[in-house]
Amino acid sequence: MRNAENRRIVLASRPEGAPRLDNFRLETGSIPIPGPGQVLVRNRFLGVEPAMRGWISAAKGYSEPVPLGGVMRGFAVGEIAASNNPDYQAGETVTGLFGWQEWAAVDPPAILRRVTETDLPVSTALGVLGVNGMTAYVGLLDIGQPKPGETVVVSTAAGAVGSAAGQIAKIKGCRAVGVAGGPAKCHQCLTEFGYDAAIDYKAVADIGAALRQACPDGIDVYFDNVGGPILDAVLEQINLGARIAICGTISATIGEGQLAPRPNRQLLIARAKMQGFLVLDHFGRFPTGLAELAQWIREGRLTYREDIIDGIERAPEGLMRVLAGANMGKQLIRLAD
Amino acid sequence: MRNAENRRIVLASRPEGAPRLDNFRLETGSIPIPGPGQVLVRNRFLGVEPAMRGWISAAKGYSEPVPLGGVMRGFAVGEIAASNNPDYQAGETVTGLFGWQEWAAVDPPAILRRVTETDLPVSTALGVLGVNGMTAYVGLLDIGQPKPGETVVVSTAAGAVGSAAGQIAKIKGCRAVGVAGGPAKCHQCLTEFGYDAAIDYKAVADIGAALRQACPDGIDVYFDNVGGPILDAVLEQINLGARIAICGTISATIGEGQLAPRPNRQLLIARAKMQGFLVLDHFGRFPTGLAELAQWIREGRLTYREDIIDGIERAPEGLMRVLAGANMGKQLIRLAD
Repeated sequence: MRNAENRRIVLASRPEGAPRLDNFRLETGSIPIPGPGQVLVRNRFLGVEPAMRGWISAAKGYSEPVPLGGVMRGFAVGEIAASNNPDYQAGETVTGLFGWQEWAAVDPPAILRRVTETDLPVSTALGVLGVNGMTAYVGLLDIGQPKPGETVVVSTAAGAVGSAAGQIAKIKGCRAVGVAGGPAKCHQCLTEFGYDAAIDYKAVADIGAALRQACPDGIDVYFDNVGGPILDAVLEQINLGARIAICGTISATIGEGQLAPRPNRQLLIARAKMQGFLVLDHFGRFPTGLAELAQWIREGRLTYREDIIDGIERAPEGLMRVLAGANMGKQLIRLAD
Repeated sequence: MRNAENRRIVLASRPEGAPRLDNFRLETGSIPIPGPGQVLVRNRFLGVEPAMRGWISAAKGYSEPVPLGGVMRGFAVGEIAASNNPDYQAGETVTGLFGWQEWAAVDPPAILRRVTETDLPVSTALGVLGVNGMTAYVGLLDIGQPKPGETVVVSTAAGAVGSAAGQIAKIKGCRAVGVAGGPAKCHQCLTEFGYDAAIDYKAVADIGAALRQACPDGIDVYFDNVGGPILDAVLEQINLGARIAICGTISATIGEGQLAPRPNRQLLIARAKMQGFLVLDHFGRFPTGLAELAQWIREGRLTYREDIIDGIERAPEGLMRVLAGANMGKQLIRLAD
């Protein structure tokens, strides 16, 4: 075994403003010994999430901030190397909040699920068959409730969550319009993910006009990963009874209030709903959702893109890529054998 | 019969900014003759609604603007004087969108319902047993979904809608906190409508601090009639899974964008819902809701307050009172016999 040690990425300092590489530090320790009831997981892939910006911020969020000096919080997939728990066996593949480290001794609540789709790449457990795919599934279907023929707009449309949301909208018979940054992602939206139209928000002078052109019948569902001026523009074009699923607010600088017209009057006029959600509140939907997502992949109706870089030491770089929008697909870190 | 004529209030000009008395004009015409299938209603009470500000504005709202020179749109209650429709008989009491006029020849779709609570004052059909009471009922129960022990905040808490919403919250076992303008309305909230706490938003220096004091366990449901800075402050204090029912936006100058922090991040962190609604979309709830509201009145669990002025010529003055917040209870116009 090449790694007789456990390498891990810890939070070295809390970012002021945007996170930087030097907010993280690579540390080397010994491989942890699993305690009573724990399992030892050897991570194969680490996931990188836009939400990590919030996890390392001191601002109030939906989870406690990662402590200074603590292992960076993150989803991972790997194999159980040793188990002190009769419910788990060595050799099983599991995914969960194992952190940015090569080895993790975890209590069972940290395990999200066993990975049983052995016909599909294990890395999918961190993306399309993980929290990302389920975020799209729950947010679009349960909050957005799209009906055939409706128009669904998705922001960060080529991302790990957005690309799944857009494709599920198409599977449900909707017109899907993607908003993404840059021509490469817009091209990907049209050619890989089947959107009916794609808007490059970095290139258009007037996002409202671009949305009006792409959504001639108005907007029924908005799957929002960004907030900001795109949300403002969507609110001006929602149809009666529209549903806005708030999945992320990456355009907002956390802790800094941006001003915009209040949405309440548009919501009233359209009798529309705007609802925030967090996929981890919807564990009950995972068995059904993951089975359906996996089936859509096997049928060729749901595709995904991964952006893999190698080596745990590059995990912070992966986060920089995600926050800069430079990744093309789900950002993953592959760990060495 | 004293009135051989039909006096009516028409929209003389469209307001620039806040409506004024001279935007309206009293006209006198002949009593209309009901056409085929129509009924002739003699109005007894006219209702005055904050939403009228929107109805006479050219800005996009949820209904077509009242045309210039047209009879002012409004709810009324009266008796059928003549009927060309076999479904309606002379002598029946009905309520509906009959307009600000003494006599109305209307098609049946304008009739909201027959008034059958003969043990209760007929004027209640325009308030607590009309659109106001049903707005509170649908908005609080269907959108707000309060659970026993939760904290419910209501704005315009002493108004026709708000006072019903606050009392229904109490009936459902919640802590009810009212926000109203001025000591008289706050006193009314505490002594007549049973709120646990009342906040005079005109008197407090910091609405956020006042809400924190009145809602030590946070806010689970906000029944919002106003929008504006009170909504902003509530959003900072919502609990996980909170529900915000957007019923009105009276604090906003229609057509003029006010800037505020975007609510999407608070909605995401709290996994909360903000939803606009219009009671007229919920006709199916009227039979159940009106029966329950009437029963609560008979049991002394639901009280209401009316602010009655006499004479159709004073209807525009009634609207000025409502928009200035000067009315104490449902603003009604009683027509002469």
